[in-house]
Amino acid sequence: MKAAEKLDLKFSQGKHICVGLDTDPAKIPAHLKNETDAIYLFNKGIVEATIQDAAAYKLNFAFYECHGPEGMEAMRRTVELIRSLDPAVAVIGDAKRGDIGNTSTMYANAIFNIYGFDCSTLAPYMGKDSLDPFFAFSDRINFVLVLTSNPGSRDFEKLELSTGGPLYREVLRRLRSWYPAENLGMVFGATNKTDLEKDIAELKDNFILLPGVGAQGGSASEISSVFRSAGHSRFLINSSRNVIYASPGTGFAEAAANELRVLNSQTA
Amino acid sequence: MKAAEKLDLKFSQGKHICVGLDTDPAKIPAHLKNETDAIYLFNKGIVEATIQDAAAYKLNFAFYECHGPEGMEAMRRTVELIRSLDPAVAVIGDAKRGDIGNTSTMYANAIFNIYGFDCSTLAPYMGKDSLDPFFAFSDRINFVLVLTSNPGSRDFEKLELSTGGPLYREVLRRLRSWYPAENLGMVFGATNKTDLEKDIAELKDNFILLPGVGAQGGSASEISSVFRSAGHSRFLINSSRNVIYASPGTGFAEAAANELRVLNSQTA
Repeated sequence: MKAAEKLDLKFSQGKHICVGLDTDPAKIPAHLKNETDAIYLFNKGIVEATIQDAAAYKLNFAFYECHGPEGMEAMRRTVELIRSLDPAVAVIGDAKRGDIGNTSTMYANAIFNIYGFDCSTLAPYMGKDSLDPFFAFSDRINFVLVLTSNPGSRDFEKLELSTGGPLYREVLRRLRSWYPAENLGMVFGATNKTDLEKDIAELKDNFILLPGVGAQGGSASEISSVFRSAGHSRFLINSSRNVIYASPGTGFAEAAANELRVLNSQTA
Repeated sequence: MKAAEKLDLKFSQGKHICVGLDTDPAKIPAHLKNETDAIYLFNKGIVEATIQDAAAYKLNFAFYECHGPEGMEAMRRTVELIRSLDPAVAVIGDAKRGDIGNTSTMYANAIFNIYGFDCSTLAPYMGKDSLDPFFAFSDRINFVLVLTSNPGSRDFEKLELSTGGPLYREVLRRLRSWYPAENLGMVFGATNKTDLEKDIAELKDNFILLPGVGAQGGSASEISSVFRSAGHSRFLINSSRNVIYASPGTGFAEAAANELRVLNSQTA
C-alpha cells in the first residue's frame, strides 16, 4: 500500500493526528525506567493504546540515535510493531536529511529499506539533487521542511528574496514544480497560523505535516479550521509530548489514548 | 584537547587533507568483502596507513546508518580506533543535522558523546535555535553548510536576497555574528572556486571544510592557493573516494597513503 493511500484512508476516517514517538527515558513512567528495553516497551504501550485512533506515527531519529546502536534497534523494532498491528497506518522517519546525491541515496536506503518507514522528512538547503534520491521511491512520501515551528524560522526561512516573497515560499513553489503530489509532503509549523492562511491556496493537494501543536504553542482546532475552510483534507497534525507524556504513572498508555481522542475531536 | 587546537596543530604541520571514510561495501577490496566486519576492517586498514599524514578524518553518517544498528557500531569503533592511534587528530561526524532545540540537543549528544566526534556538520535552514545546542559544546567545532559542492547549490543557496547578495552569504554573515571562531566551521564546496575568491575575505579566521575535490571536479591545488594568497591557514580539503578507493586490491591501504601524500603535496 502506497504511503499516500495510507494517509488518505485515515483522513477519510476523520483521523488527522500523528503521534510523535519522541521517547525520552528521562520522561517515561518510573515503573518502566529500569527495564533494559525501556524505550521499546514504552513505545509498545503507547502504540497498542493509540493504534485505532492515530492517523500516523512519527519517530524522530535524534531520540534513538542518542542511545547508540541499541537506540536504532529500538526504533527499527517500533516500526515493525506498528506495521504488524496496522499495515495501513503510515510511519514517518523524521530525519530531516539532505546531502549530495550518492550520500542521499544511502540515507534513503536506510530510512525506507533498513528501518522500513513509509515517509521521511528532508531539509531543502542543498537543493534538488539532494532530495531526488528520496523521491526515487515512488510509493513513499517525503515531507520537506518549508516553514518550521521554531523561533529560528525567522532567521533564514522568512528572508525576503529579490524576486519578492520569503525564501520558504520559493522552496514551496519549486518543490511543487519538481515532484508529484502523491510523493510530496511539506512541513509547515502549526505555530505559523497567519502564514498558513496566506499560503493555504498554494499548498493545494499536497500532504502537510504540522508540528508545533501543544508544547510549542500551536492549536489543533485553529489549524484544522484553516484546512477545513479551504477544503483541504491532507493535513497531519503532529503531537508528541502532549500525547505520550499525558500521565507519568502505570496508566500512561490509556492517558495517551484519551489525549489523542481529545485532539481528534478538536480537528473534526 | 579542543577541536580547534587539534586542527591548528595539523595545519601548522602543513597537513590540510581530511580523509573521508565514506565506506561502501560494494567498493571495498574483494578480499575484505566477505568478512563479517568488512566496513570496520577496511576503515582500520585505511586509518593505520594514513594516520601520519591526515589532517583530520570525516565519517558521513549515511554510509553507516544504511547498514542498520551494526553500521552505527562500526562507525563508533572507527572513531575509537582513530582516537587511540592519535588523540590529536580531529574526527568529523558529517551528519548535516538541524532540528528544533530539544531535538538538536539529542543529536548533539549522539554526535559528541555517544559517537565521540570532535566536530559535526550542520544544516542551517531552521535557524539559530536549531544550531545552538551543538555550539553549547564549547570544545567542539561545527561546520555549517554555507555553499555546497553539488549542482543543487544553485537552487536555494544562491538565490538573491532583497537586501542584495545570495542567501549563502547571509548565512555566512549571521553565523559569524552568532558564534566564536574557535567553534565555527563552514562547509564551502571546492567546486565553487570563483565564489570562494569573492568570499575569502569574509571567511577570515574561520575553519573551512571543502568537499568536492576529485570525483566532483574541484582541484586541491587551486583551492589551496586561494587560501594561501589570502594568508588563511584554516582550510581542510576533504577527499573521500580518490583516497580510500585508490586501489581495489590487497594493497588498498598503501595506495590510499600514497594518494594522500600526493594531495598533501598539492596543497603545499
